[in-house]
Amino acid sequence: MGIVIQNYLLFVNKKLKFQQLILYYINIMIQKNFERLLDIGIALSGVHDLDKLLDFILKEAQALTGADSGSIYLVNKDKLIFKTSRSNTYFKRWGEEETKKLFKSFEMPITKASISGYVALTSQQLNIPDVRQLPPGCDFHYNPEFDRKYNYETISMLVMPMLDQNSKIIGVLQMINCMENGSVAPFSEESQKIISSFSSQAAVAINNTMLTDELKSAQMDTILKLCSAAEFRDKETGNHVRRMSHYSRIIAKNMGLPEKQVELIFAAAPMHDIGKVGIPDSILQKQGILTPEERLVMEKHTVIGSLILKDSVAEVLVQSRIIALTHHEKVNGTGYPRKLKGGEIPIEGKIVALADVYDALSSRRCYKEPFPEEKVLSILNEEKGKHFEPKVIDAFLSGLPEIREIKDSNVDTDEDFDKFGDVDKANLEELAK
Amino acid sequence: MGIVIQNYLLFVNKKLKFQQLILYYINIMIQKNFERLLDIGIALSGVHDLDKLLDFILKEAQALTGADSGSIYLVNKDKLIFKTSRSNTYFKRWGEEETKKLFKSFEMPITKASISGYVALTSQQLNIPDVRQLPPGCDFHYNPEFDRKYNYETISMLVMPMLDQNSKIIGVLQMINCMENGSVAPFSEESQKIISSFSSQAAVAINNTMLTDELKSAQMDTILKLCSAAEFRDKETGNHVRRMSHYSRIIAKNMGLPEKQVELIFAAAPMHDIGKVGIPDSILQKQGILTPEERLVMEKHTVIGSLILKDSVAEVLVQSRIIALTHHEKVNGTGYPRKLKGGEIPIEGKIVALADVYDALSSRRCYKEPFPEEKVLSILNEEKGKHFEPKVIDAFLSGLPEIREIKDSNVDTDEDFDKFGDVDKANLEELAK
Repeated sequence: MGIVIQNYLLFVNKKLKFQQLILYYINIMIQKNFERLLDIGIALSGVHDLDKLLDFILKEAQALTGADSGSIYLVNKDKLIFKTSRSNTYFKRWGEEETKKLFKSFEMPITKASISGYVALTSQQLNIPDVRQLPPGCDFHYNPEFDRKYNYETISMLVMPMLDQNSKIIGVLQMINCMENGSVAPFSEESQKIISSFSSQAAVAINNTMLTDELKSAQMDTILKLCSAAEFRDKETGNHVRRMSHYSRIIAKNMGLPEKQVELIFAAAPMHDIGKVGIPDSILQKQGILTPEERLVMEKHTVIGSLILKDSVAEVLVQSRIIALTHHEKVNGTGYPRKLKGGEIPIEGKIVALADVYDALSSRRCYKEPFPEEKVLSILNEEKGKHFEPKVIDAFLSGLPEIREIKDSNVDTDEDFDKFGDVDKANLEELAK
Repeated sequence: MGIVIQNYLLFVNKKLKFQQLILYYINIMIQKNFERLLDIGIALSGVHDLDKLLDFILKEAQALTGADSGSIYLVNKDKLIFKTSRSNTYFKRWGEEETKKLFKSFEMPITKASISGYVALTSQQLNIPDVRQLPPGCDFHYNPEFDRKYNYETISMLVMPMLDQNSKIIGVLQMINCMENGSVAPFSEESQKIISSFSSQAAVAINNTMLTDELKSAQMDTILKLCSAAEFRDKETGNHVRRMSHYSRIIAKNMGLPEKQVELIFAAAPMHDIGKVGIPDSILQKQGILTPEERLVMEKHTVIGSLILKDSVAEVLVQSRIIALTHHEKVNGTGYPRKLKGGEIPIEGKIVALADVYDALSSRRCYKEPFPEEKVLSILNEEKGKHFEPKVIDAFLSGLPEIREIKDSNVDTDEDFDKFGDVDKANLEELAK
């Protein structure tokens, strides 16, 4: 398209005078902005991580308007959530990492008194040349608290509602201090127009990413609930599958597996013991030691699990089928069901094997208290190269601080062990809501 | 943006002559196309149903280029899948519905010999003024078979690769016969430029929709697998949860519930009996009639189910919690666990109650053969206003042809009943792949 108009213009150009040349350049500029917006729209649609997307939106908005700083607020019911901010001034002063640590996400009620609240409530665009000189009687006012705290001076602001294709407000895009030749100028009417289109593009991209996130988290919640249900027969708590899937994710990440595979292992790991639904109570819940025959039946839960999970093209189910089948193999070939050795065992099976055993040792069970960490680590180390793949142990150990955090924030309480015992006391009205 | 340039132009216009006026209108046109592309990009991102999206893409591509007809092919590994087509000529001749019935989806291998295959393989744009006069030695050729069959004459073609943000080919957009004043003209260079931007927008929108579809179907697969696992203890087959969730969807749709709720019920219904994991084998698998005490324990599966599923904000789990708790209530107040009556029972509980009982009656169980439909319907009718909500029965009956289809395509085989018995014969190498 650029070439077509350029040819036309060059053709006509011969007869053009100075004013027309100016016109020509304005046109080219406007066209370039449009072309850029189209490219940005496409790029936005391809970012599926919400934090990365919001940062990308702000960066592009800064480039389109020449703003020194900017922030994004998302609307969540009657709250505005401050999500992301970028600032050339702060980045120069403290670096990008440090600045982002300083400006953490926070929530505020939506009211007309704040500038972003006003925009969220009215869906109006605000192009404010100087926030220090708002007209008297203005609904909103500028809160200089942040500026004072961080030694910054906000002057011009361009605050846009981010409206999706149904004109629903998704968030507020706030651009601060338009820089022109090193000093602050008001935002131009043209910047406002461009950023208006851009805000809509941003809104639908945010919407789509949030929809995908919602689907993923519903998927994970469902897996955890249904798998923890199956674990109850085995007197495990629901926290077991939650913890061990997080441990698996940490190990997989530290082994350097690709992000997509790490997330698949995370989602698939909770299903490792689903085959236990095929084991009779008399064996699964037996208090004493299992006879050799009973042990053989018990070991079938690996095969039963993979039979349950087979016949689906969904990647998470393919992954979980492999995990179910292989999470009791040992690298020295003494595991089950196939007595595989080292390299024959798929990496996801090895990872879940360690995560599962670590959780069994480090958490309370109905027959034991949690072992102290020292004892747990010495048992695991003892099994390095026997039960467990040495590299998996190493990845586990390098993630120990993170693993401790998961462990400590998902400790089982008495109530967790008593969930079914509590059935008769359950508040059914509450459960029906 | 439009206004800014118009103002500038009007300002300069006073001194413009005829040539400059032409230039002015060309600019406005180009700008309008850009603005339209921006709007289209936003609109595309908001369509989440693949078929609707493809149809929308074609319609817009027709409008942007003046094409009489068009088709979209999607790339799936080494296949091109013909998905959608639109044609003003055919729509006029047969109507939109009839035309779409005629042009069903089909697959073809990707080779350079066909025009769409050539574009898919090379990612090159083709702007062909007249397909009847392709130069000799051309890699591809036009296949006039379709035209002859349906009495159409393809002359000009504009065939675009749909490339996503990583330049990966998603599909091929094929526009046919650019109409100018009632006759066929070649597609202009400008149309090609515009449709090139548009194709990328379309590609990312298609990508996003397919990603969402994939997540949804993985979610449904996972629910069905995990819930059918839980049903195995009860000697139900995995087909039971599949069939009854489809029945629930059909009933919900026929009751006129909003599409979103219909899909939630569909996804949540399989979890109705998950609480049975809390019932001991000795009661769940008892061959004879349960004692009153045993029956009381058995009935707790409703409460246990809702306890398992509680504490999640995911809509599908909220829905399934309500269904688990209420799917054994009866409208005359004789059900359990709360002996609710008519209007007190949530609609999703009533729907699943009927779908569940219908499946029990109409399918084979280990203790009975399927009842003939006549008998099933007479039992259900007998329970109208007693066990079942009359409106739910009516919605069920109006969906009977569809329900029969689901039933007949998901019949249980001997193998389905023997899945766990088969564990020792399972092919473990196959399961590990």
